[in-house]
Parts: sequence; structure tokens; C-alpha cells
Amino acid sequence: MSGTVGQVIHCRAAVAWEAGKPLVIEQVEVAPPQAMEVRMKILYTSLCHTDVYFWEAKGQNPLFPRIYGHEAGGIVESVGEGVTDLKPGDHVLPIFTGECKECAHCKSEESNMCDLLRINTDRGVMLSDGKSRFSIKGQPIYHFLGTSTFSEYTVVHVGCIAKINPLAPLDKVCVLSCGISTGLGAMVNVAKPPKGSTVAVFGLGAVGLAAAEGARIAGASRIIGVDLNPNRFQGAKKFGVTEFVNPKDHNKPVQEVIAEMTNGGVDRSVECTGNVEAMISAFECVHDGWGVAVLVGVPHKDAVFKTHPINLLNERTLKGTFFGNYKPRSDIPSVVEKYMSKELEVEKFITHQVPFSEINKAFDYMLKGESLRCIIHMEE
Amino acid sequence: MSGTVGQVIHCRAAVAWEAGKPLVIEQVEVAPPQAMEVRMKILYTSLCHTDVYFWEAKGQNPLFPRIYGHEAGGIVESVGEGVTDLKPGDHVLPIFTGECKECAHCKSEESNMCDLLRINTDRGVMLSDGKSRFSIKGQPIYHFLGTSTFSEYTVVHVGCIAKINPLAPLDKVCVLSCGISTGLGAMVNVAKPPKGSTVAVFGLGAVGLAAAEGARIAGASRIIGVDLNPNRFQGAKKFGVTEFVNPKDHNKPVQEVIAEMTNGGVDRSVECTGNVEAMISAFECVHDGWGVAVLVGVPHKDAVFKTHPINLLNERTLKGTFFGNYKPRSDIPSVVEKYMSKELEVEKFITHQVPFSEINKAFDYMLKGESLRCIIHMEE
Repeated sequence: MSGTVGQVIHCRAAVAWEAGKPLVIEQVEVAPPQAMEVRMKILYTSLCHTDVYFWEAKGQNPLFPRIYGHEAGGIVESVGEGVTDLKPGDHVLPIFTGECKECAHCKSEESNMCDLLRINTDRGVMLSDGKSRFSIKGQPIYHFLGTSTFSEYTVVHVGCIAKINPLAPLDKVCVLSCGISTGLGAMVNVAKPPKGSTVAVFGLGAVGLAAAEGARIAGASRIIGVDLNPNRFQGAKKFGVTEFVNPKDHNKPVQEVIAEMTNGGVDRSVECTGNVEAMISAFECVHDGWGVAVLVGVPHKDAVFKTHPINLLNERTLKGTFFGNYKPRSDIPSVVEKYMSKELEVEKFITHQVPFSEINKAFDYMLKGESLRCIIHMEE
Repeated sequence: MSGTVGQVIHCRAAVAWEAGKPLVIEQVEVAPPQAMEVRMKILYTSLCHTDVYFWEAKGQNPLFPRIYGHEAGGIVESVGEGVTDLKPGDHVLPIFTGECKECAHCKSEESNMCDLLRINTDRGVMLSDGKSRFSIKGQPIYHFLGTSTFSEYTVVHVGCIAKINPLAPLDKVCVLSCGISTGLGAMVNVAKPPKGSTVAVFGLGAVGLAAAEGARIAGASRIIGVDLNPNRFQGAKKFGVTEFVNPKDHNKPVQEVIAEMTNGGVDRSVECTGNVEAMISAFECVHDGWGVAVLVGVPHKDAVFKTHPINLLNERTLKGTFFGNYKPRSDIPSVVEKYMSKELEVEKFITHQVPFSEINKAFDYMLKGESLRCIIHMEE
């Protein structure tokens, strides 16, 4: 048993002291896990748009100082009271949403929106006692999404941890703890394109490309990528995208362009931008009779989805998904296995690598639109 | 072989000469069926809101004189060239939409929106030659929905005819050729409530009650009927409705009332009014994580469906259906069998009966909101 069990751990963490200002590597204290909590050593973490969005804190409640980060891979250091299905040494992915296994959502085959552990972007403390496990010389530092993976050690609720195959390389599969699973699951679990079908993907960032990867795995015959940035097409081909539509190149709505390309519409579409106009286009570009549109991107809080009801009555389906409809504990281990069996390729999502001390570079790459995923190595 | 084969038949039909004016029983000539057409003797027909809507001709292209009627049961009198799967004497239901069995929709397991024979409310003539088979002293009389069942004989495209069990009583199962199948199929084929689930039905006319009947057959534990008319509740109980909500009784949106009654929302909802506000309520009253809302009612052409996209992203599904997703030729015979096996009760939909000569009474009953279905007996 590790000598740190039950002790406060002193380690490095990247602390955001103010909105939009570079993170600062600090020595922090990480308290031991309480009941139903797990303390883990983070080996690799990556940066997701959601980290950047809340770090910029435009329009949300600012909560600082805070430790961001939610895509990561690590190893269990110690477990709190009541934790029976994880033990020190287990390889794990922390997940920004949870699975209590007790509520109506967890018991439903269809939902992954756990009543207890569903994502909460406003909470900066642990659920059990309303306190933080992080401090600097006694000053509490807020958590983020219950994960705070920009720290060498972090404390996470057991319901937000996926135990994975210990043979899986954590520097690769860490990206499966959020964005890639979100896009992949939206396609394979929700849109479910039949083999040979036509698919449109709106937004060719990491989530959209993961959706395209899902369509490729499912055997779609045409995968139409839609994006305002033409520089993304060349790279998108690696993810199975066969055609590219830039709405700026056309003087009619992109849904009409796609309908003309596909004899009435695609069989499936997945929307990954969060722009409400793109959502409407993604819905209206599916074929009547059988088309299914799936919304993934998170919209502005004042956005309104509008369509003529006849678009629905003509037998189109509109659905939304959250984290690709994966249940964190039950399903994510099998996504890792898809990588292990070479069905799913994750290397191509990883465009950059930085040591932890240079974590702010990962923010720069993302803000400039240069990176899909930048892996941050905690051990340098 | 009948002596009428290949001959013009002279018989009675109820002709609408002008919008909104009582039908007039006239002697009409019914031409023999052309290629891929069938001439049938109508024994029973019933009145549906769609007949009344187009007879009133408010806001549509008026097309008069016209023979309305599309819910009916009859017997094949003769068939045109190329018709191989029907013969004189077969018991049949004419259907207002068709199934060519050749197009992408007919070949899809999911769609019933046949490219060739999909409902066309503006067409008043036969597809093959653009002409009417009805005339009065040489003056053509327009068809309606390809069926025109308010006539002792009518001509219908073979793709719009369901061949049914000859033992089925046509004075009962005639109501399965439109409204009852529409509501029933919306529930059992599209909403698919699991056994023990909670369901809301918006609009307790014949279509909504058929949806409730579908929920009852599926084993739903709670069926919440929503209607602005409290007089409908008592009768609705016969169709399995367990609770009644009148939006007028509440000073908050009905979706909030239903969410409170059901710990977060119903598992399934079906909207049968066509009012766009009811459509939005029907969508927003389903539970996050797994709720499915199905739209059946036909909206005003300028209606706009609006919702916040987060209602979708929280894993709700919104779908529309047309004719309950039944394929007319392939599926309707099995709906008749559901009646024959006593799984489906149709008698309770039949509230009135009139002889053909008094067909205008059926319009009065419907306009006063007194009837669910009024059976019109062609033979008096």
C-alpha cells in the first residue's frame, strides 16, 4: 500500500487564478478521498473546448481559483470508504458526468443522464460535503466538472470513473474520456447509420471528426463534412469524410445543397457545432421517411430551434445526445476495447504533445484552431 | 363474371357542388378501371375530419364538383390491366395514400411515404391519364384522395387498396382505412411505449383515442388525456385514458403540469390536434433521458415549431408520423386481424350510423362534435 494513503499529497497543479489568464503551475495540497471518492494520479490529460469555454468565463458564473481539465487517464492511488469496485493501481479514465447505478436514468437502458452525478458546470466542490479537496496553503481551490485533471493528483467521485484495460496506453485512450466518445457515440449509439448509408456531419472539430469516424466504422458509403473552414477538409479525409460542403460557397441554405447532392437528403446527420442555424440545417437535410438528425453541440442559452412541423410529419426524427449516450462506468471500458482491437483509431486525433509545465501552449494551439487534441504529459 | 365488367356503371354518389354546401345524391357514371386500377363497390364508408376540412375548402385550392370520402370498406367489382393481386369479389379497404412497392420509400423498412402514391390533396384525377372516372351526363366530377368513397362505386389505384380477411365485418373495419390506424400506428409503431410506461395523448378525438387504445394494448400504466373539452373525458376512459388534463384549468404550461404529475415527464407522448402550441407541449412534457414525442396532427401551413435545443440535448426524441407508419397494402391487413383477434376494439369508435341518403347528417354530427365515427350505409 502506498505511503500516501490517508495523507495529504503535495503535488503540482495548473491553477487558473483569473478568467482568461494563463494557468500557473502551483504546489497544491490534495486531501485524501472521502466516502465514495477516489484519489488518482493523473498521467496524461488533454485539453477540450469545454475547459477553454469555462476558463474564458464569458457569460457563465466565474468560479476562481479553479483547476480545469476533464479528459485524462490515470491510476488509482487510494479509495475512500464504500468504494468496492476500484482499488489502488487500477487504470482509469475520469469522466465529467457520472453513473450512480441507482437512479431511474442509470436503470434505464436509454439514458445516461444520472440524477445524482449528471454534469454540473457550476459546482466547484465535492458532492458529499460541499468542500474542495484542493488547497494552497489552506486556501481552497475549486474543482471543475468533478474531475480537475490539470493536477498530478485529483479526487473524483467513484461514479465518475471508468475502470479500463490496464494494457491500454493511457497517453492515447485519455482522449476517450470526453470529446471523442461524445462524437463517436452520437453516431454509433444514436444516429446508427445503416451500412451503405449517407451521412452528414456538421462541424469538423474533434467531436465532429469522431462522429465521422463512427460513420466510417459503421460502413457509411458517403460522409459529407460541413464546415465554414475549408482548411479542415484535407485532414477530415483521414476520418472517412468523402465530400465537403462549405455553406459559404452557396447562395442557398446548406440543407438544400445537401438534399440536391443526395437525391432528397442524407440518411443520418450529426450536428457538432452548437450553432442553432446549423442544428436546423442538420435536421432539415435528412431524407423524409427515414432520416434521423442527432444534435450534439451545446447551444447558446437563448438559442431557439425552429422548423416547420411538416418536416417532422414527413417522418423525420430529431434527437439530442449527451456524451454519446455512453454510461461512464458501464460503457466507456468497451470504447477503450474498440481502440485495442484497432476498430477505432485514436492516434489521428492527437496532433500535439506538451509537457505539463507548458500547458498554456495547449490553450494556444486550440485557440488558434491548430490542434484537434494536445496531450499534456504530467511526468516530464 | 359480373355483367358490369368493362362497362360504365350508373350509380348513386354524394356530390359536393360547392364548398361547405350540403352534398347532393346524384346519379353518376363510373368508368371502368384503366391499367393498374380497380373498381370497387363501396358497402360502408365513414366520415373523417379530412373530408370536412377539404369540403369546407378554407385556405386550400377549391376543387369542385368533387366526390369526397376516404374511409370505407368494399368489394372489388373489376380490375384493370396489370392488376394481378386483386380479383373481383375480394374484400378491400381503399386507402388515401399508397404503396407502389417499387420506390425507395416502399423498399425502406422505416418509411411509408411512397414516392408514386403518397397522399395528394390537390389532385382530383387519376394518376395514369390525368382524367376523372366520374361524370354526370358527361361533366367530369373530381376525385378526392384517390378514393372518393361517397359513391356506390369508385375507381382506385391498385397501390391504394388493402386486401383484407373476407370474414371481417366491413361495417366495422371500414374505420381502419384512415383515422383509427393513424392514431393506433402512431402509438404502437412509432412511440412504442414499453409495458408499464406513462403516456400522454393530446387531443381526444377519434385519432387521439386510437392512440390511447394503442397505449392500452401496449400495456401503459398511466394514459393522460389532454383536451380543451372536458366533456370528452368520460368517454375517453373506455379507450384506456386514466387521467385527464384540461390546459384551461391551469395557469402554467400544460407540459409543466404533466411533468409534476409524472416525476419529470411522461415516457411517451402523441400529439393529435395539429395545433402547434400543443405540439410544443407534447414534446416538452416527455421525460429527459428517454422520452419520445410523436406528432400526428397536421399543422397550419404557416405554423412554426419552436423549442430550446437543450430540450433535445437532454436526450428527448421528436418524431412525426404519417398514417401511423403503416404501409397500406403490406400492413393494414394485419390491423384488421388485430380486430378479428379481439386485441383491438373498433366498435367503441362507432357512435353513429346513417343511410347514404342522409349522409349530410354525418357532417352535422361531426361539426357539432357529437360523433367519433358515423358509419354511412350505402345499401339502405
